[in-house]
Amino acid sequence: MRFFSDNAAAAHPKVIEAISASNRIDTAYDGDALSKRLDGAFSELFETKVRAFWVTTGTAANCLALAALCPSYRGILCHRDAHIEVDEAGGPAFFSGGAKLILLDGPGAKLTAEAVESACGAIRADVHQVQPAAISITNASEYGLVYRAAEVTAIGEVARKRGLALHMDGARLANALATTGESPADVTWRAGVDALSFGFVKNGGLNAEALILFRPELADEVAVRRKCAGHLLSKGRMMAAQLLAMLDGHLWLDNARAANAAAQALAKAAAERLVYPVEANELFLRAMDEEAERLRAQGFDFYEWGPGQLRFVTSWDSDPEAVDQLAAALGTL
Amino acid sequence: MRFFSDNAAAAHPKVIEAISASNRIDTAYDGDALSKRLDGAFSELFETKVRAFWVTTGTAANCLALAALCPSYRGILCHRDAHIEVDEAGGPAFFSGGAKLILLDGPGAKLTAEAVESACGAIRADVHQVQPAAISITNASEYGLVYRAAEVTAIGEVARKRGLALHMDGARLANALATTGESPADVTWRAGVDALSFGFVKNGGLNAEALILFRPELADEVAVRRKCAGHLLSKGRMMAAQLLAMLDGHLWLDNARAANAAAQALAKAAAERLVYPVEANELFLRAMDEEAERLRAQGFDFYEWGPGQLRFVTSWDSDPEAVDQLAAALGTL
Amino acid sequence: MRFFSDNAAAAHPKVIEAISASNRIDTAYDGDALSKRLDGAFSELFETKVRAFWVTTGTAANCLALAALCPSYRGILCHRDAHIEVDEAGGPAFFSGGAKLILLDGPGAKLTAEAVESACGAIRADVHQVQPAAISITNASEYGLVYRAAEVTAIGEVARKRGLALHMDGARLANALATTGESPADVTWRAGVDALSFGFVKNGGLNAEALILFRPELADEVAVRRKCAGHLLSKGRMMAAQLLAMLDGHLWLDNARAANAAAQALAKAAAERLVYPVEANELFLRAMDEEAERLRAQGFDFYEWGPGQLRFVTSWDSDPEAVDQLAAALGTL
Amino acid sequence: MRFFSDNAAAAHPKVIEAISASNRIDTAYDGDALSKRLDGAFSELFETKVRAFWVTTGTAANCLALAALCPSYRGILCHRDAHIEVDEAGGPAFFSGGAKLILLDGPGAKLTAEAVESACGAIRADVHQVQPAAISITNASEYGLVYRAAEVTAIGEVARKRGLALHMDGARLANALATTGESPADVTWRAGVDALSFGFVKNGGLNAEALILFRPELADEVAVRRKCAGHLLSKGRMMAAQLLAMLDGHLWLDNARAANAAAQALAKAAAERLVYPVEANELFLRAMDEEAERLRAQGFDFYEWGPGQLRFVTSWDSDPEAVDQLAAALGTL
Repeated sequence: MRFFSDNAAAAHPKVIEAISASNRIDTAYDGDALSKRLDGAFSELFETKVRAFWVTTGTAANCLALAALCPSYRGILCHRDAHIEVDEAGGPAFFSGGAKLILLDGPGAKLTAEAVESACGAIRADVHQVQPAAISITNASEYGLVYRAAEVTAIGEVARKRGLALHMDGARLANALATTGESPADVTWRAGVDALSFGFVKNGGLNAEALILFRPELADEVAVRRKCAGHLLSKGRMMAAQLLAMLDGHLWLDNARAANAAAQALAKAAAERLVYPVEANELFLRAMDEEAERLRAQGFDFYEWGPGQLRFVTSWDSDPEAVDQLAAALGTL
Repeated sequence: MRFFSDNAAAAHPKVIEAISASNRIDTAYDGDALSKRLDGAFSELFETKVRAFWVTTGTAANCLALAALCPSYRGILCHRDAHIEVDEAGGPAFFSGGAKLILLDGPGAKLTAEAVESACGAIRADVHQVQPAAISITNASEYGLVYRAAEVTAIGEVARKRGLALHMDGARLANALATTGESPADVTWRAGVDALSFGFVKNGGLNAEALILFRPELADEVAVRRKCAGHLLSKGRMMAAQLLAMLDGHLWLDNARAANAAAQALAKAAAERLVYPVEANELFLRAMDEEAERLRAQGFDFYEWGPGQLRFVTSWDSDPEAVDQLAAALGTL
Repeated sequence: MRFFSDNAAAAHPKVIEAISASNRIDTAYDGDALSKRLDGAFSELFETKVRAFWVTTGTAANCLALAALCPSYRGILCHRDAHIEVDEAGGPAFFSGGAKLILLDGPGAKLTAEAVESACGAIRADVHQVQPAAISITNASEYGLVYRAAEVTAIGEVARKRGLALHMDGARLANALATTGESPADVTWRAGVDALSFGFVKNGGLNAEALILFRPELADEVAVRRKCAGHLLSKGRMMAAQLLAMLDGHLWLDNARAANAAAQALAKAAAERLVYPVEANELFLRAMDEEAERLRAQGFDFYEWGPGQLRFVTSWDSDPEAVDQLAAALGTL
Repeated sequence: MRFFSDNAAAAHPKVIEAISASNRIDTAYDGDALSKRLDGAFSELFETKVRAFWVTTGTAANCLALAALCPSYRGILCHRDAHIEVDEAGGPAFFSGGAKLILLDGPGAKLTAEAVESACGAIRADVHQVQPAAISITNASEYGLVYRAAEVTAIGEVARKRGLALHMDGARLANALATTGESPADVTWRAGVDALSFGFVKNGGLNAEALILFRPELADEVAVRRKCAGHLLSKGRMMAAQLLAMLDGHLWLDNARAANAAAQALAKAAAERLVYPVEANELFLRAMDEEAERLRAQGFDFYEWGPGQLRFVTSWDSDPEAVDQLAAALGTL
């Protein structure tokens, strides 16, 4: 029973159908009718004019955005546990030509406006130290915590004051929004976000993520960088089709709600073991080694996350029966 | 009626089916059962032990290979009309950190052993001039010409003598092999090729190309570079599934034969207009502007390729009726 | 008798003296009093407000300028024989993170406005082809030809029309200006030049070249890039001292005149052998192999520049006796 | 009275003389007689065959070495306070094309074998996390502490075991060796160091540092990278002359001893204020703000190094009178 990650979840049947349905002759790359609908569809969702690009991975979305927001000789403020620092193989430096990740601390892998302000203040303003050009935050965070619009707004204000761009890694933004009920606009551009990696693959997509630019003037550069990095697929219609299927009828939100509900069921069953409150679809639990072994023996698959901690991740397609079994198992550990 | 390119062709139904069939829970990235079958499947096809990677674009395959074969401070010998020079947005320099494309001439966008030898001889062996580290050839070439094994072998010998790596951009290798009947092994590693971008997307795949390493010791570096460049998809099983479907029962060869047959039908109808012999699935025809207009008026879609030249490309799914109509139209221009 | 290049010429005694004189305690890097005088001194020379940076090589000056003018994913139009293409080891791609040199032809290694316009017109405006962002011209050119202000102005107009930046590699700008008598301002910023590599090392400096920015807003970026590339020397005062000594009393112009006069003496003696008119301090002569051997036998040191051509370069410290001897030898070949 | 850094110290008169004496006609770049003597001179000093390169800055020496030792997609283990992390503007990432600095802690800015081993153990061996390829240590450290040969040897053993290269930033290696009396060989290659940035500019040189390769097979790559990065000066003879003058009669060691002696005099006077033992030519002192002000009022120039700490640096040319005055002032604070 899979709880090790949502990144291997199935693609939603409607996504597969949409791919099949788009398998007709059309123009290549992103000149097709479906790709051309993306800007409009996401502009509607975000209640402002955006430019939207399909890419195949969150790493690509993050790194293309950061390369457009930060020159090679400057830096990106992010949390020490951020995915771009820990799990993207140095991609941000590669895409940007050398930009440095400047690492900050903060509980639950979240940044605060104060932490950003303080980090900026500690950097000498000379040519010897790398000067920051951007901030990147992850929502939901690596530990499944959620930024409220007010928190992002506070960071956005530091960004504006300091002349920094603001990027959001929203690999699990759907789960965050499903929890807060806030609008996509409020937690992004209205709060000062310039570019968003909007995740779909963990949430029912097959291999299409969305890079959303709230500053449309960046689109030309991003379009070239996407091609240059080998990310301009020739049958782009099958990428756009996935995103449109996910947006259609708010499938993305329904899927995120299902994943979150499963996580809440597990959280209830293991409330006293929680390292962090469960705000999205990830649970971090305290457990002894023998307890972990017992769970594995019952067929549950999950990650050990440092000594004495386990990570469980639910997804849109988490098997309800497996969730029930895991909840029961956690309750009787 | 689409003849402008094969890059927008439909995916083969068996490919779509294979994607659907792989849409079950499995490990992420390339740890799944299907991805693990790739090395074996391609090793069998090439009659030697290879390492095979799925990537989503030919640009990614080419650039990952070249970055592994050429350090940032050296150069890659290629034809002036090569796709990596003309149509990949500077990707080779981006992936390699600055490697230079050293441009050679040659009829039909093909390199010869002599041209390579001569270009090497013209470079001063000092630190001021960029020294070559690799050769890249395209088979079939940008003008639809095919390298025979003997031609590649001659280039491979120059490569070995000069200490250069040899890369083949095989975006249309299937079409080339369908024409020559030579074995995949003979025209690649037996001829000295170190790395091959093996194209499937133009030939019935959806978005999976294969990067084949005939020097398995390069695999670790390529695996890291693929991740670093944002090309390690989380549901890799759906990439592997495409490639395995294409290999199954030699679907790739059948598809290429279909495309080539359509091209031959057109070639016969317009024999006296051919700029190059038709050896794969591309035709370059001499035509006056008004002739081009007349064809467009009849509903044919194609590229103008410089003054007085038109390019037509067939594909595995070229509509036989459309081919017949175009043949007729060309015959009566 | 050295005529192979001016790059190994002696440093002028006044330059050595200036270095010695600056060898006192002062602030490090470019915070010292001499370095701070550079902006003013060059602004006076160029009759406009400029920002001036010392660097140790022409390659560094060229590449820092180009990296500031051209993003990693775009290109620089230059002559096929330009130093940045032929003799800088791929530096422009390294500094810029991958920018492509787009090579143009033109007699005497000079670009014309028409050639630039035509090259731009041949590039498809899409994401697949590398779009130019800058033009780089060399004055005097690699073949010792000089741009008049009117020629640069014409190129500058194409640059402005096309939205391209204009860089001048002025490794031998002193020699060019000594010939034309035009003002430094007229042939640079008034003609549309944005950044200038102003050469001093070939002309009496020890190891200080000047990078002049006519768009002062680029200075912050260039300052960081200079440090990042390891070109911010700690005893910058000894760099600034060299440049100020060269500017003092127009030593740079006197030196260039001396070099040019020597070249003219040689040109007169070998008028019928000249491949190009002699407009600066370089001569390219037609000569048979045995003639070259005879000259070498007499102790003259020079380069063979392709088959049947010899290159002779004079410098500020060319020994008058050696020049007379070479003139005589050329006259009696 | 200057105690803020040794980087702005005067060049030693013998260095200036050597530059003057080399100001004759010779071949350009590093083909001259003096540059050719470097390999031999440093091989003698290090009692093994080395390749030695002049460069103008420590940043260039460090970054060229690291780029040769670490590919773009891997990382370099170093101390959180290392110069390459804190004061080189992201140069290591720029030169290497994106290599990541992996930051370790340790008292006095020194690494230990245990810290390196532990850091390596904490990195998951997969393609998602950046894998280290090299270690860089600074001797003397940023806080003026010295590595003994045994300490380096222990780190070297971890390096060998883990397949990592070992680089030493020896900007103040002279000061370290002057203190320990150990041989240059024992603390470098015999201890496992692969490449050394050997500093001379802080110690009496004008603008020549030495990059020493103990693995001569790296020399070809470094030579090209040096040119590509704009660090191949045309009058290299004046760079080599500096290094040879510093080696001659062990001037480098005499200079370092003078600087160290001055530091010891100050250390004695302020023993109870020392944050670290004084092992080279840097002192870090605890002092209240008003004490710092009092020292400034007496004409002493120094850095504040975090709250309540002051940094004083002596150099080969520290004015003995100024040292006495500062010692007195510290004694009576």
